[in-house]
Amino acid sequence: MPNTQDRVVETSLRVRYAETDAMGVVYHANYLIWFEAGRGDYFRAFGQDYGAWEKDGYFLPVVELHARYLAPARYGDTVTVRTWIKGARSRSVTLGYEAALAETGQLLATGWTQHLCTDAEGNTRRLPEELRQLPPHD
Amino acid sequence: MPNTQDRVVETSLRVRYAETDAMGVVYHANYLIWFEAGRGDYFRAFGQDYGAWEKDGYFLPVVELHARYLAPARYGDTVTVRTWIKGARSRSVTLGYEAALAETGQLLATGWTQHLCTDAEGNTRRLPEELRQLPPHD
Amino acid sequence: MPNTQDRVVETSLRVRYAETDAMGVVYHANYLIWFEAGRGDYFRAFGQDYGAWEKDGYFLPVVELHARYLAPARYGDTVTVRTWIKGARSRSVTLGYEAALAETGQLLATGWTQHLCTDAEGNTRRLPEELRQLPPHD
Amino acid sequence: MPNTQDRVVETSLRVRYAETDAMGVVYHANYLIWFEAGRGDYFRAFGQDYGAWEKDGYFLPVVELHARYLAPARYGDTVTVRTWIKGARSRSVTLGYEAALAETGQLLATGWTQHLCTDAEGNTRRLPEELRQLPPHD
Repeated sequence: MPNTQDRVVETSLRVRYAETDAMGVVYHANYLIWFEAGRGDYFRAFGQDYGAWEKDGYFLPVVELHARYLAPARYGDTVTVRTWIKGARSRSVTLGYEAALAETGQLLATGWTQHLCTDAEGNTRRLPEELRQLPPHD
Repeated sequence: MPNTQDRVVETSLRVRYAETDAMGVVYHANYLIWFEAGRGDYFRAFGQDYGAWEKDGYFLPVVELHARYLAPARYGDTVTVRTWIKGARSRSVTLGYEAALAETGQLLATGWTQHLCTDAEGNTRRLPEELRQLPPHD
Repeated sequence: MPNTQDRVVETSLRVRYAETDAMGVVYHANYLIWFEAGRGDYFRAFGQDYGAWEKDGYFLPVVELHARYLAPARYGDTVTVRTWIKGARSRSVTLGYEAALAETGQLLATGWTQHLCTDAEGNTRRLPEELRQLPPHD
Repeated sequence: MPNTQDRVVETSLRVRYAETDAMGVVYHANYLIWFEAGRGDYFRAFGQDYGAWEKDGYFLPVVELHARYLAPARYGDTVTVRTWIKGARSRSVTLGYEAALAETGQLLATGWTQHLCTDAEGNTRRLPEELRQLPPHD
């Protein structure tokens, strides 16, 4: 069960060799995949399920994102991803993320992703009711 | 236009930094993605389109694969993937692949993938007619 | 701590959206990345660390692999990867893998990878002593 | 040879099935890999080579990035990535990117990446001379 203290959900993951690059550290785009893993866990921590939303015709494609890289992660490191809701409007939601080394707490990266809510055809629609009721981070 | 000499189709690609790993060489699983790129080009070289087959309800999921690794590729290398049909049955097809350094011809990897033909629900069905008529490698 | 019963180590992972493809299921090459995650956990379960071996000049590149796909995994599924040693020679080791749905036990894929032991320059060398002493699966 | 008109370099690529996700479109993080491919081609178009810079001890890790997504790409689409230099300081450089469908010109995504120049140990250093002389986009 993810930790939901302060409306921030924590995900723990181990760096895969596949995620490293020839610099010997994690390739930058993989942090966005870790943020996605954090996002899924965030919803699960509040009893929701992104996969179920899709079955109900709610899709949340990324429309904008930003990331800042502070320190490298290496193969075998345990990384803690923290995820929270930064804000929501009727048809979009923005989540915030931090990735840190579990052992030392060193911050690796921060970022945010903005998602538009659409139906299966790509038309915008209101967020699922359960998502609108998720608490933003204080 | 891919080269289709001897019923082998060539695809050229440049190694991306994202495809390397902490050993400084291309991560092994990425060769299977290159084989997939080769497979798509193979069909296109004979006027076919895997995406169109999917729209017509023909899917070709991988059911078995094998790869052998002979030499490493590095960031920026130009790689030639050669693809051919090893054999086909009414409901499955097997393709063969080689990846080599374009500059020197050094062989990097060989492999094959077997694909079952299914409909959108995952039930097996006969291969699309156009695929059954593609020539196996001599 | 991974389960090492019967000299098989279990890894649990959650399917990421990034790992799915347009068929709505996990893309085949990602199972090889899951096998790699299982391999790392296998060594850790016996007190070893592949990253430490690399620092000592032992590298284990994949030289051959095989995989068979039996059923699809989908976004959000929890997958159990089981890893064991199939056999070892003085300069190479072969590991076996199974991936199954955690909830139902349904087998998704099986495979093996063979690894050659090399130094940093790519010359073959004997496996690290600790690895030679790991027990093969009964 | 990439097109360098107006100090913008174009890269052409074909969408791989591996790059799609369960929404049937390209997964957002893959655009950052395409931007990386564009970046490599940008340097090559001006006679430079990022791999050679690394051999000389110049590394350009991403320290910040931003992307905006406007329309989806699908399997088999041909995508044109346009890359240019937005600006440079003595120890950092920022590149801009656009990805568009080759067939229709429809814009898919825009973004930028900022890179710090470091040595192999991660200490900041001045950009390679050849990079400092590359022309920013007018």
